[in-house]
Amino acid sequence: MKKLKQTLQNIKSVDLETMEAATARLDQLTKPKGSLGKLEKLAIKLTGIRSELYPSFKNKTHIVMAADHGVVEEGVSPCAQEITTQMVTNFLNQGAAINVLAKQVGAELKIVDIGMVDDLEAEALITKKIKNGTNNLAQTRAMTKKEAILALEVGIEVVEDAIKSGAEVIGIGEMGIGNTTPSSAIIAAITGAPIAEIVGFGSGLDAAGVKNKIEVIKTSLKLNKFDSDDGIDILAAVGGLEIAGMAGVILGAAANKVPVVMDGLISGAAALIAQKIEPEIVNYLIPSHISVEPGHKTIYKKLGLSPFLDLDMRLGEGTGAVLAMPFLDTSISILRDMATFAEAAVINPNA
Amino acid sequence: MKKLKQTLQNIKSVDLETMEAATARLDQLTKPKGSLGKLEKLAIKLTGIRSELYPSFKNKTHIVMAADHGVVEEGVSPCAQEITTQMVTNFLNQGAAINVLAKQVGAELKIVDIGMVDDLEAEALITKKIKNGTNNLAQTRAMTKKEAILALEVGIEVVEDAIKSGAEVIGIGEMGIGNTTPSSAIIAAITGAPIAEIVGFGSGLDAAGVKNKIEVIKTSLKLNKFDSDDGIDILAAVGGLEIAGMAGVILGAAANKVPVVMDGLISGAAALIAQKIEPEIVNYLIPSHISVEPGHKTIYKKLGLSPFLDLDMRLGEGTGAVLAMPFLDTSISILRDMATFAEAAVINPNA
Repeated sequence: MKKLKQTLQNIKSVDLETMEAATARLDQLTKPKGSLGKLEKLAIKLTGIRSELYPSFKNKTHIVMAADHGVVEEGVSPCAQEITTQMVTNFLNQGAAINVLAKQVGAELKIVDIGMVDDLEAEALITKKIKNGTNNLAQTRAMTKKEAILALEVGIEVVEDAIKSGAEVIGIGEMGIGNTTPSSAIIAAITGAPIAEIVGFGSGLDAAGVKNKIEVIKTSLKLNKFDSDDGIDILAAVGGLEIAGMAGVILGAAANKVPVVMDGLISGAAALIAQKIEPEIVNYLIPSHISVEPGHKTIYKKLGLSPFLDLDMRLGEGTGAVLAMPFLDTSISILRDMATFAEAAVINPNA
Repeated sequence: MKKLKQTLQNIKSVDLETMEAATARLDQLTKPKGSLGKLEKLAIKLTGIRSELYPSFKNKTHIVMAADHGVVEEGVSPCAQEITTQMVTNFLNQGAAINVLAKQVGAELKIVDIGMVDDLEAEALITKKIKNGTNNLAQTRAMTKKEAILALEVGIEVVEDAIKSGAEVIGIGEMGIGNTTPSSAIIAAITGAPIAEIVGFGSGLDAAGVKNKIEVIKTSLKLNKFDSDDGIDILAAVGGLEIAGMAGVILGAAANKVPVVMDGLISGAAALIAQKIEPEIVNYLIPSHISVEPGHKTIYKKLGLSPFLDLDMRLGEGTGAVLAMPFLDTSISILRDMATFAEAAVINPNA
């Protein structure tokens, strides 16, 4: 609790003055005003986060939180629970999509066991297990508030280690069979959107499976009372340990003025929790892709963010996050390296 | 004409057998089937283009075609015509957005004067001028059919040089004040979409400017008769020299089994012309971003392509194309480097 409190106290407003300087410079560069769209807005946002006109985002770390979910007992996923452990092993052996994509963009990978059912031993695995999977949220709260706080603090610790090692931008992703169910419950709890509009096919449910999943989520939200103004309470009632870990990463990164690149639905649920705990974190969050999961749009709307990539992806692991990571440095290179109208002797069509 | 004819004869169907092998392999990799969305489809497409399961797209060349437009006399752009020459000078001095973005992705830039009003002399400029700007298409045909064919052949020549130098993927972009007007005329001529739904604010028109632009396009389409089944005739009637050059690049690349990454509205108009000349080229075209120009959506629909990036951009030069270039190699790395379910001992949820 002490670590979380301290972290929250360290989250400050972004630097509006530097953002204004960045805007003024962008409007002098040799292009129609605003014609690089979201890349320009990204550059401005990043200067505000770092209080610096030309910050670097070359040093990239991607954090994958892995955990299991008691609710898989309810048949909410077509995948067997063992796949969580099998896929984490695949991560450690460099065989998964996230390994390939992280390598492509030059991001270091950190894999964290924050609550897997199985106890994997591997040198490359960061073991910070809170418990062996959450409780079945269709029967009881997913975890205690104390466990939720400990999981948030795991995220803070892991991201602070990464930042100490030089990370300038953080990606978040996850592995946890069944985790679109707690994520959808969180989205419904926080945004009030109808559950049927949020829930999708996950990693491959059929129509009957989707119907069952909707019922399970409805039950969980009725059964487990929570204070809807309290992000930690929502997390404990219907969340997941990897979701808590990613929310902790967001809070810890914001406290250290480091941007976090979101991924799909589950990282988005973590972002909603982090926003509920500290609304300022939205200014440190960078969107990536829009997934095919219908609830993802609801998340971006609530966060006030607009994604860069539209790739029909629905894999998780942070695959969308790492694909968007290069845009940070690219946006700053626009701001820094383009010639102004005056330097290039080009007529300014905006003047 | 001989070069164009020969090129068209060399454009072959893509290799369906290799595409099937790529699909089969993707479905055995450790991820829910199809969950990497457009990246998987891209990988499959690329294997068909190259007849090779793991082709390389590391060697990137981006071609910018520059030309002027007689129609700027009609007040269709808020920018002065001199800006074409000024911006090309800026390209040659490394000061423009396209320079910065090409450098970020490691793409070599080729700048081609295919029809600028001014005669620029610079070692780095590829001078292949057909004429000093098109005619005012609100008064007469933009160019003769012979000029259109010569401009197509310039594109073929330039791209063949790039491929001979090792280019594995080609980006296309342009510079030409006023060029959203001929592009919109081409889109209307080819797709039949209502002009008012195609025309946008270009580089910064006001509402009255847009209204005038719509009238100019209507006039040009009425005045300059063309055979709507003949891409070259449409190009000559209401096109532009840089549009012809880009269409030539597409045809030349397809004839050499090299993919071309499109950019925004103007490159899209070039793609429609190329498609009209040889429908098979669509299988060699890679989309990039969706621009804020309303006609861009119409183009993608006609080509049957779906863009990867949604960045609210409207700059041209090929800025969207170069941003998407890394996805080619990334998609192949997924296909090549991920572990299969069997290799990773992960339960196949699709089986």
